Amino acid sequence: MTPANYKRIVLNSRPEGEIEPTTFRAETLPLDLKPGADEVLVQVTWMSLDPAMRSYIREKGGYMAPVKIGEVMRSNGLGVVVQAGSQTTHPVGQLVAGSFGWTEFALMKAAEVQTITVPKGAEPLDFLYTLGLSGLSAYFGLKKICDLKPGEKLVVSGAAGSVGSIACQLGKQAGATVYAIAGSQDKCDWLETELGADKAFNYKSPTFVEDFKKVGYVDVYFDNVGGDILDLVLSQLNKGARIALCGAISQYNASKPKGLQNYLSLISQRAKIEGFLIFDYAAEFPVAREELTKGLLDGSIKGKFHIVEGLEQAPSALSLLFSGGNTGKLVVKVSDEPKL
Amino acid sequence: MTPANYKRIVLNSRPEGEIEPTTFRAETLPLDLKPGADEVLVQVTWMSLDPAMRSYIREKGGYMAPVKIGEVMRSNGLGVVVQAGSQTTHPVGQLVAGSFGWTEFALMKAAEVQTITVPKGAEPLDFLYTLGLSGLSAYFGLKKICDLKPGEKLVVSGAAGSVGSIACQLGKQAGATVYAIAGSQDKCDWLETELGADKAFNYKSPTFVEDFKKVGYVDVYFDNVGGDILDLVLSQLNKGARIALCGAISQYNASKPKGLQNYLSLISQRAKIEGFLIFDYAAEFPVAREELTKGLLDGSIKGKFHIVEGLEQAPSALSLLFSGGNTGKLVVKVSDEPKL
Repeated sequence: MTPANYKRIVLNSRPEGEIEPTTFRAETLPLDLKPGADEVLVQVTWMSLDPAMRSYIREKGGYMAPVKIGEVMRSNGLGVVVQAGSQTTHPVGQLVAGSFGWTEFALMKAAEVQTITVPKGAEPLDFLYTLGLSGLSAYFGLKKICDLKPGEKLVVSGAAGSVGSIACQLGKQAGATVYAIAGSQDKCDWLETELGADKAFNYKSPTFVEDFKKVGYVDVYFDNVGGDILDLVLSQLNKGARIALCGAISQYNASKPKGLQNYLSLISQRAKIEGFLIFDYAAEFPVAREELTKGLLDGSIKGKFHIVEGLEQAPSALSLLFSGGNTGKLVVKVSDEPKL
Repeated sequence: MTPANYKRIVLNSRPEGEIEPTTFRAETLPLDLKPGADEVLVQVTWMSLDPAMRSYIREKGGYMAPVKIGEVMRSNGLGVVVQAGSQTTHPVGQLVAGSFGWTEFALMKAAEVQTITVPKGAEPLDFLYTLGLSGLSAYFGLKKICDLKPGEKLVVSGAAGSVGSIACQLGKQAGATVYAIAGSQDKCDWLETELGADKAFNYKSPTFVEDFKKVGYVDVYFDNVGGDILDLVLSQLNKGARIALCGAISQYNASKPKGLQNYLSLISQRAKIEGFLIFDYAAEFPVAREELTKGLLDGSIKGKFHIVEGLEQAPSALSLLFSGGNTGKLVVKVSDEPKL
């Protein structure tokens, strides 16, 4: 019982700095999408909003090809198969995840969607957060780059975001002392009281720098923000410190990133900065998901969703990531799960 | 037959930027230094001048305590034991290396000087270059940080300096394609014709940036200079690239280092910047020296000394490092080896 038309949101123009009202444009199209033999038609239920999406709309992209003008905006999401090509094995009604984009319906190669089996006690939306790319980023960043040891001082920036909130909790599980950096007192309270951070710092506080200096030497820094906070942490590195560069949200809207001043400390402290992309660890996703699922079900990994309703809200919601307007995982609800 | 007086050079004032005529001051003192039971008196023959010495005279030092105002300037050197305390095992006449400072005579704890046995075919001065901290820095930087593999593209900056010149040659030995960056056409010629660099770039050339871009994606960068060249290389990283931060000579005179703009490429390229200090690998020095000695004796590792005569020339000679006035290893000849 699919509708006659569907909506999608395409890239209309490339913003110089912050996302503008003219950056995206909504389109309504007839729903005449027919899956080929190896394709499925997916009705999108949820969309994930992530900082890296800002890089997709640059002329010169980051690790992925830029979204072209007029193309559907790229994003991960959840959905349900509503029609399946003759050579596919996904049944109609199957819950799936994939890079569906900002659209109510997406025609996808069956090989490019992942079927999802929700563990008892979890919910589908967890596959956009703790069990999705956010949780996996926290997991592999700490595991592959940071080599975090019990008793070490771990700093996590963007700590109230989707990746940061998981990184804080995995850090506590690993026996580290966890210092969280976030952008409001409410977020700091949540990090300390709900997520177990030993101390949370509001970087918008006028005393932030002097407060943070009291942390002393940092062993591991899980960085989601880049910019000034990265530069500050560089001035407080312990010997052999490791910095995992997961993201640099403070810089994504900048046409020219603010330069790092304090990198010479990497020499005297024999320290490293290393970037990573979790796609490189895809073979290990099942093991990681198993551990993350365990934490989710036993309550040792908690989270919070910031839910925005309606596809057409996606552009303004995306800006929340850069203004610090969300706590936890920012998602857009596109539709209820269709009854098939 | 020691003289009645000796000269030394002490720190007189801390420079803001470049080293000034008032930064150091020469002193003449009576040579009444008597070694205690566990000490030796060393007559200094050669002094090594190194970029890191700029950090020793900052108020806030790098990896070592700053030299205090009025103290002898710290430097490594070679010398000969001219008097030995009753509980030392170094015979008078023994060739030694150590942190003697800018002085004609130094009273040293015997445990803090290294006896040197010059291999047949080598000379004492090699212990300030290929077999000294310069050669060891090149060796351990490449071995411990870079994990250089045959066929990879290696870039070395400060390539005509003491560390860089060895790094280029070890890179060739490891099977890499070596791109050298130096500050004059003469240096580039030397690197290409004598040291085997596949291509050398003069960073003072007006077409340097466009020329260097033709190198394409860089697998390993052995960085001695920091600053703009580091930022340029950051924009040309291959996936999984490794940058060994050995030094940042372009920034040592700066009160505020120039910021790195292009560090976000570390994420998309899954790359790292890592600093190192060779003192962490002291246990492996003998093995490294054995390999370096082999290269020195079979001619596969060459070098060039830039010799300045006379202790009193040390301050102005030190500035050569920062103006690019030296090719190869910069040393000061303080005295002939005493006949004892």
